[in-house]
Amino acid sequence: MSIPALDAAAMTAARARQDTLTKPPGALGRLEDLSVWLAGVQGQCPPTPFRRRRLVLFAGDHGVAAHGVSAYPAEVTGQMIGNFLAGGAACTVLARQADVGVRVLDIAVDSDHLPPSVTVHKVRRGSGAIHLEPALTGGELAKALAVGAAIADEEIDAGADLLIAGDMGIANTTVAAAVVAALTDSPASAVVGHGTGIDEDGVRRKQAVVSAALERWRPMGIDPTVVLRELGGADLAAMVGFMVRAAGRRTAIVLDGVFPVTAALVAEALAPGTSAYVVAGHGSTEPAQGLALERLGLAPLLDLGLRLGEGTGALLALPLLDAAIAILAEMATFGDAGVAGPVDA
Amino acid sequence: MSIPALDAAAMTAARARQDTLTKPPGALGRLEDLSVWLAGVQGQCPPTPFRRRRLVLFAGDHGVAAHGVSAYPAEVTGQMIGNFLAGGAACTVLARQADVGVRVLDIAVDSDHLPPSVTVHKVRRGSGAIHLEPALTGGELAKALAVGAAIADEEIDAGADLLIAGDMGIANTTVAAAVVAALTDSPASAVVGHGTGIDEDGVRRKQAVVSAALERWRPMGIDPTVVLRELGGADLAAMVGFMVRAAGRRTAIVLDGVFPVTAALVAEALAPGTSAYVVAGHGSTEPAQGLALERLGLAPLLDLGLRLGEGTGALLALPLLDAAIAILAEMATFGDAGVAGPVDA
Repeated sequence: MSIPALDAAAMTAARARQDTLTKPPGALGRLEDLSVWLAGVQGQCPPTPFRRRRLVLFAGDHGVAAHGVSAYPAEVTGQMIGNFLAGGAACTVLARQADVGVRVLDIAVDSDHLPPSVTVHKVRRGSGAIHLEPALTGGELAKALAVGAAIADEEIDAGADLLIAGDMGIANTTVAAAVVAALTDSPASAVVGHGTGIDEDGVRRKQAVVSAALERWRPMGIDPTVVLRELGGADLAAMVGFMVRAAGRRTAIVLDGVFPVTAALVAEALAPGTSAYVVAGHGSTEPAQGLALERLGLAPLLDLGLRLGEGTGALLALPLLDAAIAILAEMATFGDAGVAGPVDA
Repeated sequence: MSIPALDAAAMTAARARQDTLTKPPGALGRLEDLSVWLAGVQGQCPPTPFRRRRLVLFAGDHGVAAHGVSAYPAEVTGQMIGNFLAGGAACTVLARQADVGVRVLDIAVDSDHLPPSVTVHKVRRGSGAIHLEPALTGGELAKALAVGAAIADEEIDAGADLLIAGDMGIANTTVAAAVVAALTDSPASAVVGHGTGIDEDGVRRKQAVVSAALERWRPMGIDPTVVLRELGGADLAAMVGFMVRAAGRRTAIVLDGVFPVTAALVAEALAPGTSAYVVAGHGSTEPAQGLALERLGLAPLLDLGLRLGEGTGALLALPLLDAAIAILAEMATFGDAGVAGPVDA
């Protein structure tokens, strides 16, 4: 899919308007940059407030969870889906606060007991243990990418103008670390972190799994679809398809932690230009996220020490986007307000 | 005024509840700390959502503005008051977004032409040029401190449960730098920054003014009321009185940039314990803010490169406080949700 460029004229107009508002030039820092970016995404200056924001949760299990890389058992993935649907999870609480609708999808949970409403797009039960076998078959990869694109289409057709891809899956930071290592040519030691709370022994096991996975994959080469198939998973691939389609349809995407940022890195490799529609919501304690963001040229808006996933860091960043739009749309200019400019102006 | 301690029992209960919620312990990072702090401020777990949030703008001019320390002429202070009242300033736009009521006060604007509604608490026209003369007389200092306390009382009596002290005053970062230098025993070179946008020559002039002010003050000693009288200003002193009274009445205060953080530093020196009721909203590019925050043991929630004042950085941080309260009040526990805990638990 070819990705349209941001609207340069709208961005120029937004930058010019920022410099007429009743504040010193640049004094609103990253809010000004956000307002210019949103003008470029929407193709209008000022951009309009978001009408329909959506969090899509991509749940999936990973075979590596059985190999001591996570502090939690794999059953938690399926159990948390019940918690999402009941509204008791962190992401659902924060989504209510931020006026974001939530959609929960079982892409590859290792369970047959989830409600049909969430399993409608299921690709398989758990992705393969990447240090031992491919995460996906070629057919499953294609299906997962198509599912993600179809979900983006459904959401945008229903009016969504801001999207967050949230992740839920025990051991998914291991998979993200392996994919980032492959795409940035980094060793396991540079990408593996403590996830949701493993100890130093756990980190060593996680590094060994990632190293073995990279060794298994390396002869197959750096084609991003190969990396996704061998080292990723159905949930990650669906998220990639979702982001590529959202960008192709000029829709803003807010990233969360290491898993969605990894999806964005793959999406950019598959469909260059995708990352122009992406903003980084929150910095992660996982080192793979930092490497991926650096490669994408993105800096997170927030750094609050979150390490949960579920889109939580992206949800917390949304008020900053709203603020950026309001500033550009509602502030008075020096001329309107009868306020003097700088001494030398 | 003696400042009550935070409620330790409510904080213990909040910390214990965080560890039962459906997320790994600590996975919500600073949101968890905020929820515990808010429980301590309110004396209940979970804390309740804020009902009445208020931004009080303390406007004042400073004699140093005539000495080449700012990019803007002093008339801007009074002109911006009109912009605040009309709702076209950054702070008023962001306050609407964050559901915060705004009150504008002329504490020491160098103008006689402002509306009576804002001049009711005026202490004087412009504070003294601190490198040449005291900022205030002893009587003016006492009046400014009392005015700030009275305003806090009025706001809290009217139901305010969250307060922001915003600043507006050309050259006020010079004054803040001098006060922070005095209270942290730092040289002018360690506290002076570019303010709203001066060049390197401007920074040198600002350093010279701060150095001269410190030299004039030094023989008088480090008593915080002496520092306020000699190096501060009526707007700063009113803000100090406001914060001390708010803390004395157990009300949460969100700080913005260098000027309110300087006020908090003075307030803590005058009434130890005040800073327990304070959270830092936004990091400033002014080095004096970093020194003051370090002394207060505070780390800002946001760092978006803002350098405007007016309470803007504090307003942007408010959704994080709302989120912290919602998490503690609304998330399900592992027991409620039937979700398994960590493998070793």
